[in-house]
Amino acid sequence: MSSPRQMHLGCFILAAGHHIAGWRMPEAEAGSENLDLVVRVAQKAEQGKFDLVFLADAVNTRPDMHPSMVLRLEPLTLLAALSMVTKNIGLAATASTTYTEPYNLARYLGSIDHMSGGRCGWNIVTGAFADAAKNFGREKHPEHDERYAMATEFVACVKALWDSCEDGIWQLDKAAGRFIDAAKMHTPGFEGKYFSSKGPLNMSRMPQGYPVMIQAGASEAGRDVAGRIAEIVYAVHQDMGASKAFCDDLKRRAVSFGRSPDHIKIMPGVSAVIGGTEAEAKRKLEELGECADPKVALQVLAERLGHDLTGYDLDAPVPDLPPSGIMRGHAETLQALAKKDRLTLRQLRNFVAASMGHRLIVGTPEQVADGLQEWFEAGAADGFNIMPPWFPTAFDDFVDQVVPILQKRGLFRQEYTASTLRGHLGLPRPEWGG
Amino acid sequence: MSSPRQMHLGCFILAAGHHIAGWRMPEAEAGSENLDLVVRVAQKAEQGKFDLVFLADAVNTRPDMHPSMVLRLEPLTLLAALSMVTKNIGLAATASTTYTEPYNLARYLGSIDHMSGGRCGWNIVTGAFADAAKNFGREKHPEHDERYAMATEFVACVKALWDSCEDGIWQLDKAAGRFIDAAKMHTPGFEGKYFSSKGPLNMSRMPQGYPVMIQAGASEAGRDVAGRIAEIVYAVHQDMGASKAFCDDLKRRAVSFGRSPDHIKIMPGVSAVIGGTEAEAKRKLEELGECADPKVALQVLAERLGHDLTGYDLDAPVPDLPPSGIMRGHAETLQALAKKDRLTLRQLRNFVAASMGHRLIVGTPEQVADGLQEWFEAGAADGFNIMPPWFPTAFDDFVDQVVPILQKRGLFRQEYTASTLRGHLGLPRPEWGG
Repeated sequence: MSSPRQMHLGCFILAAGHHIAGWRMPEAEAGSENLDLVVRVAQKAEQGKFDLVFLADAVNTRPDMHPSMVLRLEPLTLLAALSMVTKNIGLAATASTTYTEPYNLARYLGSIDHMSGGRCGWNIVTGAFADAAKNFGREKHPEHDERYAMATEFVACVKALWDSCEDGIWQLDKAAGRFIDAAKMHTPGFEGKYFSSKGPLNMSRMPQGYPVMIQAGASEAGRDVAGRIAEIVYAVHQDMGASKAFCDDLKRRAVSFGRSPDHIKIMPGVSAVIGGTEAEAKRKLEELGECADPKVALQVLAERLGHDLTGYDLDAPVPDLPPSGIMRGHAETLQALAKKDRLTLRQLRNFVAASMGHRLIVGTPEQVADGLQEWFEAGAADGFNIMPPWFPTAFDDFVDQVVPILQKRGLFRQEYTASTLRGHLGLPRPEWGG
Repeated sequence: MSSPRQMHLGCFILAAGHHIAGWRMPEAEAGSENLDLVVRVAQKAEQGKFDLVFLADAVNTRPDMHPSMVLRLEPLTLLAALSMVTKNIGLAATASTTYTEPYNLARYLGSIDHMSGGRCGWNIVTGAFADAAKNFGREKHPEHDERYAMATEFVACVKALWDSCEDGIWQLDKAAGRFIDAAKMHTPGFEGKYFSSKGPLNMSRMPQGYPVMIQAGASEAGRDVAGRIAEIVYAVHQDMGASKAFCDDLKRRAVSFGRSPDHIKIMPGVSAVIGGTEAEAKRKLEELGECADPKVALQVLAERLGHDLTGYDLDAPVPDLPPSGIMRGHAETLQALAKKDRLTLRQLRNFVAASMGHRLIVGTPEQVADGLQEWFEAGAADGFNIMPPWFPTAFDDFVDQVVPILQKRGLFRQEYTASTLRGHLGLPRPEWGG
């Protein structure tokens, strides 16, 4: 008898909170450079049997950015630190294929997988903020389609490097003086248009073979990459039907590349504002809205639409701006929402302040659980990337109040049954040379 | 009353041991991917009140490399992990200015300093192995002098990025809605010949201002860089007089750049083989020598001399090879030793197998302490980079048997009196914009 399908849960740690005013809540603690807070959140997620914690990233800043992003610890080093204070939970972070070297990134992620005993995940991004280019001595952020071509090649390159050594290379035979099995070390000799790396990588094959590959592109090029290689897909959807169509499309693409539809997990973002009653939850959201900085909120919306919004009338309908090469999934979802609900720019700005465009569920723990169950059972999601409005107590409430309901309903694990992120997700360990 | 001058001690962790046959000793544990071993070594060093642990690095491998280098965890992620399981000890690693991006490395090191509460050190290398170039899609390793010009610019660039934010940028004033003091964020706009980065860096100023800067170049260009910026200098010397001359030269250079001679600490490498009696220590060294793989030993020597040695007669005198652009300090020290002691290539190979060219002290704990004291008091060293022949027990012996003698003689601290690496070394925290 096969066990019933269960949802997967990730905790998206943006430590000043996902709501732009989250940090101002009375119980919120200081932001994204607060290691002690991040450690407690990761341990709480592990207590809640989450599949993974996830750290986003960007390689630029400005003072009016989202408070969780303006100043922050670097995610790869932070994951390495978290590997020492957690035991089971997956540890994933964003790293850019546009602004890192394959040989270096292969080592960082490989080390995290080794040190954590097989818990590393990698969110492959091509760089969502055009400002980043100038931090790397380049005049221009490459165009959208070129960034995806680079990403595809980058992934092929790091996979080749990760397969430099076959499994079982360590010998450590003191008597015979045999340290490694040299015949198991190979020189990948990867040569591409954008990236070349001869290798071998100076690291044995990692416990998971490759880290769990995460992707979030919603454009045609992004979906194509996801269908080929992604094992978790982050998505931004307000509408269950749209999310279901997205899931179906991605699983179809995966199948067309010879993959199992079960090996690509679609996990839309969800921000839950939880109250003892629905009215209390709504009051919390209102309080958050009153504390939001309108300038920062407009900047966050501008990043997501990919256009500078200064000069637009806040009380006019959302302007019909053409899609840019940046954050296309967000832009499309937000434009669709604005059209459907006839929102003004001010209304859309306030919505984005709350959840950065992701689905927002406001209510009791039961209502939140219902909202997750509905999408999960409809095939509109394999799980959810939980985006608490602030840390730590808004996330504590989710773990303490929503997770037990999901467990009681048989929708979520009671205990870990695996010790690797691939294990939690039911993903196979890739064969060597795969 | 000023306290007496005390030596500084670092533990150079090459986890399969510094002697190429160290891993074969009965008590040796498996090598450089063994996180648990590295954690215990770092904790032992902290128990011994060491100033720092140090992780070397290279961005290439081959099966016949030194066993500690062939397969290894990546040092920056490893330091981040160590920051969680240690409290006081400094955490330093090598990172290359030739094969990383300033914006990325500034973040990695900055995060380690934040997470460790001010314990990060950075060994600035320009890349000692020419093979590395092809791992980064480049045809050729840049020439020696160009690598140093790049390094100088790289350091200026990361310092500018580290000073993106003035101290005290965090406000976190919930009532006023004031998250940071935006006036304290600046755009460095660094533009160089090799590296440019506009900034700002997305991180507040780190606890130490900058990580402790470590350097090991022995060439004219390397000494010049060290005199300008290094706070710890690693060196390879067999002869006390040569080491004293090196110390004097570097301190003179530092003074010529307007720095205090006390703010540049010269720490030559020392490999100690410790026995209950001198005869026992010598037997251990012999046993190690018998276990050494001659092919690997010759390869290690070839790397240090910067020349392929295949075809040379092992029983003829060491050939007088011209200095290459690689590891010049090692090459010069080894050539001088070979001349002075009229060594054959085989004898030099066996010497390098033991300590990779560094000073080797073989004897009782008292003799080892004497050997350190002599150089320290002669002004030939400010401290020592301890290179145990294997881990963990050869290092445990140093901590348990040599350190107490140094402490009893007043030559080394009994307790930590600071919580940052700068504090242990008596180095000032750099002013913002310095």
